[in-house]
Amino acid sequence: MAFPLLFLLFCTFCSSPSAIYSTFIPYNTSASVVSGKINVHFVPHSHDDVGWLKTVDQYYFGGNNSIRGACVQNVLDSVMSSLFEDKNRKFIYVEMAFFQRWWRQQSSGMKERVKGLVNSGQLEFINGGMCMHDEATPHYIDLIDQTTLGHKFIKDEFGQIPRVGWQIDPFGHSAVQAYLLGAEFGFDSLFFARIDYQDRAKRLQDKTLEVVWRGSQSLGSTSQIFTGIFPRHYDPPDGFTFEINDVSPPIQDDVLLFDYNVQERVSDFVAAALAQANVTRTNHIMWLMGTDFRYQYANSWYRQMDKFIHYVNQDGRVNVLYSTPSMYTDAKHAANEEWPLKTGDFFPYADHQNAYWTGYFTSRPAFKGFVRTMSGYYLAARQLEFFRGRSGVASKLGVLADALAIAQHHDAVSGTQRQHVAADYALRISIGYKEAEKLVASSLGFLTESRSSTRQGSISTELEQCPLLNISYCPPTESISSDEQSLVVVAYNPLGWKREEVIRIPVSSENVEVRDSNGIQIESQLVPLLNATSRVRTIYAKAYTGHFPSEMPKYWLAFSASLPPLGFNTYFVSVANQTGSSSILSLVHTAENTKARTVEVGPGNLKLRFSVDSGELTHFINGRSLVHCFLKLKFLISNLGPSPCFLQASGAYVFRPNGTFTVKNLGQVPSTFLRGPLLDEVHQQLNPWISQVTRVYKGKEHAEIEFVIGPIPLDDGTGKEITTQIKTTMKTNKTFYTDSNGRDFIKRVRDQRTDWDLEVNQPVAGNYYPVNLGIYVEDDTTELSVLVDRSVGGSSLVDGQIELMLHRRMLHDDMRGVGEVLNEIVCVLDECEGLTIVGKMFLRVDQLGEGAKWRRTVGQEIYSPVLVAFTKQDASKWMESHVNSFSGVDPSYSLPNNVAVITLQELKVGEVLLRLAHLYEVCTLSNVTDVVNVDSFLSNLFIQIGKVTELSLSANQKRSELEKRRLVWKVAAKEEESKVVRGGAVDPDNLVVELAPMEIRTFFLNFDSPQIYVS
Amino acid sequence: MAFPLLFLLFCTFCSSPSAIYSTFIPYNTSASVVSGKINVHFVPHSHDDVGWLKTVDQYYFGGNNSIRGACVQNVLDSVMSSLFEDKNRKFIYVEMAFFQRWWRQQSSGMKERVKGLVNSGQLEFINGGMCMHDEATPHYIDLIDQTTLGHKFIKDEFGQIPRVGWQIDPFGHSAVQAYLLGAEFGFDSLFFARIDYQDRAKRLQDKTLEVVWRGSQSLGSTSQIFTGIFPRHYDPPDGFTFEINDVSPPIQDDVLLFDYNVQERVSDFVAAALAQANVTRTNHIMWLMGTDFRYQYANSWYRQMDKFIHYVNQDGRVNVLYSTPSMYTDAKHAANEEWPLKTGDFFPYADHQNAYWTGYFTSRPAFKGFVRTMSGYYLAARQLEFFRGRSGVASKLGVLADALAIAQHHDAVSGTQRQHVAADYALRISIGYKEAEKLVASSLGFLTESRSSTRQGSISTELEQCPLLNISYCPPTESISSDEQSLVVVAYNPLGWKREEVIRIPVSSENVEVRDSNGIQIESQLVPLLNATSRVRTIYAKAYTGHFPSEMPKYWLAFSASLPPLGFNTYFVSVANQTGSSSILSLVHTAENTKARTVEVGPGNLKLRFSVDSGELTHFINGRSLVHCFLKLKFLISNLGPSPCFLQASGAYVFRPNGTFTVKNLGQVPSTFLRGPLLDEVHQQLNPWISQVTRVYKGKEHAEIEFVIGPIPLDDGTGKEITTQIKTTMKTNKTFYTDSNGRDFIKRVRDQRTDWDLEVNQPVAGNYYPVNLGIYVEDDTTELSVLVDRSVGGSSLVDGQIELMLHRRMLHDDMRGVGEVLNEIVCVLDECEGLTIVGKMFLRVDQLGEGAKWRRTVGQEIYSPVLVAFTKQDASKWMESHVNSFSGVDPSYSLPNNVAVITLQELKVGEVLLRLAHLYEVCTLSNVTDVVNVDSFLSNLFIQIGKVTELSLSANQKRSELEKRRLVWKVAAKEEESKVVRGGAVDPDNLVVELAPMEIRTFFLNFDSPQIYVS
Repeated sequence: MAFPLLFLLFCTFCSSPSAIYSTFIPYNTSASVVSGKINVHFVPHSHDDVGWLKTVDQYYFGGNNSIRGACVQNVLDSVMSSLFEDKNRKFIYVEMAFFQRWWRQQSSGMKERVKGLVNSGQLEFINGGMCMHDEATPHYIDLIDQTTLGHKFIKDEFGQIPRVGWQIDPFGHSAVQAYLLGAEFGFDSLFFARIDYQDRAKRLQDKTLEVVWRGSQSLGSTSQIFTGIFPRHYDPPDGFTFEINDVSPPIQDDVLLFDYNVQERVSDFVAAALAQANVTRTNHIMWLMGTDFRYQYANSWYRQMDKFIHYVNQDGRVNVLYSTPSMYTDAKHAANEEWPLKTGDFFPYADHQNAYWTGYFTSRPAFKGFVRTMSGYYLAARQLEFFRGRSGVASKLGVLADALAIAQHHDAVSGTQRQHVAADYALRISIGYKEAEKLVASSLGFLTESRSSTRQGSISTELEQCPLLNISYCPPTESISSDEQSLVVVAYNPLGWKREEVIRIPVSSENVEVRDSNGIQIESQLVPLLNATSRVRTIYAKAYTGHFPSEMPKYWLAFSASLPPLGFNTYFVSVANQTGSSSILSLVHTAENTKARTVEVGPGNLKLRFSVDSGELTHFINGRSLVHCFLKLKFLISNLGPSPCFLQASGAYVFRPNGTFTVKNLGQVPSTFLRGPLLDEVHQQLNPWISQVTRVYKGKEHAEIEFVIGPIPLDDGTGKEITTQIKTTMKTNKTFYTDSNGRDFIKRVRDQRTDWDLEVNQPVAGNYYPVNLGIYVEDDTTELSVLVDRSVGGSSLVDGQIELMLHRRMLHDDMRGVGEVLNEIVCVLDECEGLTIVGKMFLRVDQLGEGAKWRRTVGQEIYSPVLVAFTKQDASKWMESHVNSFSGVDPSYSLPNNVAVITLQELKVGEVLLRLAHLYEVCTLSNVTDVVNVDSFLSNLFIQIGKVTELSLSANQKRSELEKRRLVWKVAAKEEESKVVRGGAVDPDNLVVELAPMEIRTFFLNFDSPQIYVS
Repeated sequence: MAFPLLFLLFCTFCSSPSAIYSTFIPYNTSASVVSGKINVHFVPHSHDDVGWLKTVDQYYFGGNNSIRGACVQNVLDSVMSSLFEDKNRKFIYVEMAFFQRWWRQQSSGMKERVKGLVNSGQLEFINGGMCMHDEATPHYIDLIDQTTLGHKFIKDEFGQIPRVGWQIDPFGHSAVQAYLLGAEFGFDSLFFARIDYQDRAKRLQDKTLEVVWRGSQSLGSTSQIFTGIFPRHYDPPDGFTFEINDVSPPIQDDVLLFDYNVQERVSDFVAAALAQANVTRTNHIMWLMGTDFRYQYANSWYRQMDKFIHYVNQDGRVNVLYSTPSMYTDAKHAANEEWPLKTGDFFPYADHQNAYWTGYFTSRPAFKGFVRTMSGYYLAARQLEFFRGRSGVASKLGVLADALAIAQHHDAVSGTQRQHVAADYALRISIGYKEAEKLVASSLGFLTESRSSTRQGSISTELEQCPLLNISYCPPTESISSDEQSLVVVAYNPLGWKREEVIRIPVSSENVEVRDSNGIQIESQLVPLLNATSRVRTIYAKAYTGHFPSEMPKYWLAFSASLPPLGFNTYFVSVANQTGSSSILSLVHTAENTKARTVEVGPGNLKLRFSVDSGELTHFINGRSLVHCFLKLKFLISNLGPSPCFLQASGAYVFRPNGTFTVKNLGQVPSTFLRGPLLDEVHQQLNPWISQVTRVYKGKEHAEIEFVIGPIPLDDGTGKEITTQIKTTMKTNKTFYTDSNGRDFIKRVRDQRTDWDLEVNQPVAGNYYPVNLGIYVEDDTTELSVLVDRSVGGSSLVDGQIELMLHRRMLHDDMRGVGEVLNEIVCVLDECEGLTIVGKMFLRVDQLGEGAKWRRTVGQEIYSPVLVAFTKQDASKWMESHVNSFSGVDPSYSLPNNVAVITLQELKVGEVLLRLAHLYEVCTLSNVTDVVNVDSFLSNLFIQIGKVTELSLSANQKRSELEKRRLVWKVAAKEEESKVVRGGAVDPDNLVVELAPMEIRTFFLNFDSPQIYVS
């Protein structure tokens, strides 16, 4: 048959001749809000992960595209072109790590044009941190810092202040995000996508996806924020995605071409808008026009959005406009609606009945620990940089600041990135650390040198630090020999209050003595290093430094240091010349050679009792306060089993146990007990790959438990999650408390949620919560608290019990996009094994009502450990020629233990950023306002504070202006809020800062004297 | 372990602080050719198929992206943006079907800016047809037309003349492409990628990828062209592709980011350039920077090319520049090198030893037939439009012109597109046909109406046409009844010479008579329609028109029409009033009821003898010229068998037989013989799905064989290719001849190639060649020729034999990208079956040396069949009131039979495009120049030709200027070329056009009188 197999269908338009006539259509894109109609706010956006499957730089320049085609440079280049083309088009940008990279590469002409876009509101920065941070696993200080960094960039380059929080992707949402990182930044609203699937179902039904959220019990309505949860995800409705190669049908409106579809697509649009309007209060709905790494060719989106605005508004059933979340917020606010109240947080997140995203609370525990350690170090380094004075030179802390900032990304510290990306984050932090280490060494050097010698010339003292002290690797301390040089130990305390800490350094000789800065010998103790440490020290020192460490030192030398606030003292360790003057060697005995059935340790008030047979810690007894507690500490494995591919497995994100097994005491070494004047230790090898040391210091009333876990074996074909469990007989009524990003504690009730009737599908994983600072339970008389040194997942699955997941190693991906099994490996000389982690927990039992003080103060001490630096010199010479003791704070003054200096940073000559944080919550210790006298506080620095300006939390605007601009929302609250206390305005004359419970206040301090003189 | 698992590797640059300082780099992209260095010519291009997996419009606007993400609108939008950004950047564009769509949609401002790009040479149009046409299956007239359409657009809108042929993707390359569609367009060069893998290997070794190609034996060096074959494909070297999401490493040259790789990428570049320079003459190499549908975001390519130009030229080992094929051609020409000579063509194409792309010569035979039929119709319609006069109104033929133009695309008429795309091409042609049909009806109406009645007002006569006449569906002729109205048959001859043809129309009555335009009854014959026709008529009339046809007519009424050149005669069919006056009914008998062992048919000089037993045609006897021949015609099936997936299967492109089986005479009906005064027919049902009618006309000395094939059964699980084979005893010495795009015949020698020693891997598929016009073999005395009505694949696999592949139906894809099995289906009322085709071959035996004349003249008649239109009126009234006979040509004049009018088209009032084609080759009939007197030729139209301007073949420039600009190349020819004859300049006074063998000459004729008056 010579003719085509179809009817002669006639297309209305396509029979026009080929003559060149114009089908140019000038689209009308100028729509604005129309009252009385459903308004669809097009929000063009690109969600650009600051590292995930690829590193941040690979995402930026389009490297490693075989893993995932993504290039943020394309996004920003092409978006700008599209915005230039039509002044009605808008775009929001979120991740400053990327924008900054792009910005630096632009010509000055392009920068001017882009500033024009920002000024006209076409391009709006929202969220505005360096990254869209995780909300479960970072510390709030890191979150403030990373946002401040981004906001400063935006302020400095564009003079803009972001108005909206945009946490669209993080896997659950914290209370601290709402009040501290939202309201306290001056944000008018906060938006995100991911909440529990049951919660979403209820909110869709109740039209409660948009709420006013009060995240802080202490600060209540003074820190509330309008919060919008997206009906589904942060992408457009189905059929409205227009990235190059996307399959949604574009509008074909050229009458000379086939497949003309304007009416059809307009109807699709109206239907999708009505569906969303049905679950939304007011007649404003937001369409998220974009998703991950979209707008690589922005024109392909804007071309279609232009057409939809043109044709849908011609159609008239609904109104659609280019918008931003700020415009949307203003429209919501203008609607004068009453909004439901939300308190607490949005943890844990489940996207499916078997998929609770509670595994990532613990994923990559070594990296989480590294980030936390560096966070504390960065805080201290900024103090020291300020004390030293930058004298106008660029900060040496920029690299560490950047590295820590992007490490807060929701696929960074969360542990949910690919392995090579985790390595990239770590490398960046390591490089930043190396820079910071030099700065700290030089600053401490400067501060130790006497006034006369340092005014001119460079600093002569080289102070060494030991980042691997935790694995007993510290070359300067290991090599104390009998020559005339002493080990000079400079111990710096970054806290605003005085503190006593036992310092432990590895030494090879048992014949050493310790003197204080006055040359007086002080008590010290030698604790033998046991063999368990050796393997870890050898492998990880090699992995980290590139060479094998020297022979293992024999002892930890422990001595107690007494340190001033924001200052240091100097100690000297030398070979003991006289017998009897040297350190006291700990007494060692093992469970084998004792006849007693229990052993009690603890040189001070706190006593721990262990069962000799089981090795278990059985009693926690504080003689001073008469608190005691029966407890039992053990390790568990969640056995994941070989999971058929159709089932949900545990992975980087998801925790999906299918059984729990107690770690058996098979083949382990009997407990070893070490006792001495400063501390007692109990060493226990629980199985070939789990060991722990329980440590009780004379001056402390908590136990410090240091664990070594790994390599987790996989040879039985099952991935494993390693949990530690503390069991007591307390009747805790299903209730426990976990912190929000290291700040407020939030009440958790097992198998319950505040906002809906929970259908319990995962009784273990569904009760896990993020733990950054600690976790506690209480009954009528007692509190049991555990503090941690990094973020972990934790729960209380049985009354009286607390459990923490410390490590995990997998054999399956959990199918949430990362596409790689979380199986961390360390390789040395081509031999690879699973990652071993070394970490600490801090355990304490208090009388009811007493725990908060300890948790807060010691929590801050854990976050900001004593920074120790070393050099070698003749002790007497050093003492004579150097400053042996220093404090930034007036000797007569010390901050109260409930106020932390969370930022003390020189911004430029004569300008310092100061953040003071009240550590206690309302209703615990501190309903009254605490007071800091800023003048006394820094009076030791010989600076004259000229002006104190209170700022928003991210330091990008005056606090007073923020409060003026703040939108007021009507809230449908069930009960009246009790009065919230906040600190009053700072009197410019006496410079006294009031802090209410949980309040953080941020100031610029301007000095009249441009140069700091350290006293 | 709390520390990261990596060495503290220091990146040289990345420790810089985050302070905002500029990494802006102004790239130097201004490079030009540097003599003495290897020059890498970056040629940014996007190969945009005018339909393949998606329809042309879907590719344009990005529809149907689930099949393939591709949107040419993105390409053109983003390329323009990138070109605007840097004046050194260049781009070539090829497919005017797409560019025209884009151009129409642009604002006048954008058009001005783009014109600027074209004028400055940043944007260059090359090839410039509506599509990149196929070279195997289209007719040269279609190719000229489609290119003329594109070139006209470029000339009209931009004043530009493309300089380069760019056939990068077609699957083999024809001689006609080189000389006619290359040199005769005035192209300076021709480039492509696909040649036989063995050929390429040799050329790479010999550095003969770049040649001077003389495609025409007749026109030799006067139509040669510099031709470049790419070393591999038309994409960049590996690692240099930069579409969004491509995996090639981009240059990372920001010192503040990780993965800095400038040196590494420059070295990659130099290595790739040197490798290519090694197989290329002169120090110029071309890098094809692009491939299929690339540059959807052009910036992602240009950003990288900018960097490579900047850094590679800084490196200095090689030089790289933005270029175009024109610049590259000029550089090659300037090198003054001697180039190897290439003659013949590049068929067949194999990309692998088992993958000969010779299946597509036949793929979609119905569509190929449709295109060919419409091509002839379009030629005739343009003549009639001219005769009618457009009077300044837009041509009604534009849609058909566009549709036929894109149907020449190398995935259109080639049959290698997806099914829905084939349907789209067919639909476009159908729509175009409907418009053309109205125009033809109106023009014929106009021409038949007497002068006085038509000067004013509209045309009153409605003439019907029957596009389904080939399946005996023609409502106007079927309904001749006994009322007073006659069927008026207007038969138009589009050829320039007089002709006699038997016209056959279906009638239902046996009592009819035929009269000529003088009212004289003429001889006619009724040929019974046999049952075999009925099924096809019912199904396909329904499929095509949407309704089932009326009862089947009983007869074909045949009568001989005598037609003037470019004119018509009118015939009248009416119910015979007197017995004896009616048509003569054919005598019918079947093989069953004859006792003879042979039956001879043929009412004229030609006799065909059939074996009664086998049904085979055994003798072809021409009594007049005493030629006779023994032959045997049979059908074969290439059985493809179920192919394991690792083997190469036959598919849309590839012919891969694994066995051949003769169609058995199982269950078929015995032959039926029908005889009469005008023609004899032999009807044979070879098997349930193959039948044929062999037809011998009294006045013709060839046999016409009409075949009906299908539905090809697949129930045995094997795909099939249906071949017809004509066997003779001729000793043809492995040699046969096939045409090039319906024009020159090219000698083929079985299992041999001109350019290299062929390793024979596929003795069947590797000897197949495209057949558009025909195929012939010859021995010392005789020629056996077969002409075809559409393009097919053909060969002579055994001496004395010719075979043609007529139909194919597959069960496998051949893995060349189309991703769909070629299995054409027709559905009627939800019942579907494989496609049935109806087609014709024309068979003739000549004395040696006589065949060419027949092949050429009858070939042209096959291409331009008599156009028949119908109406009903009282015959006498019509004769009185209408013009019954018309010719555009002076009655005293007729073109010689070796000159065809291949274009006669009104461009605008007073301007006509005329193309005259000499049909014979040198050395056959016509070494001398033939002559056409243009004035006499069109003198019947009462027009006064004012000016005759000779043009290039695509009518976009004066021929004289073309010749002036033409580049002269040094050729390394083995022997001196014999003198080539070409027609001389046209004398403006006598307007005589000389035509040398195979010459086509193109003219604008300007008329002094703006209005045509038909005599």
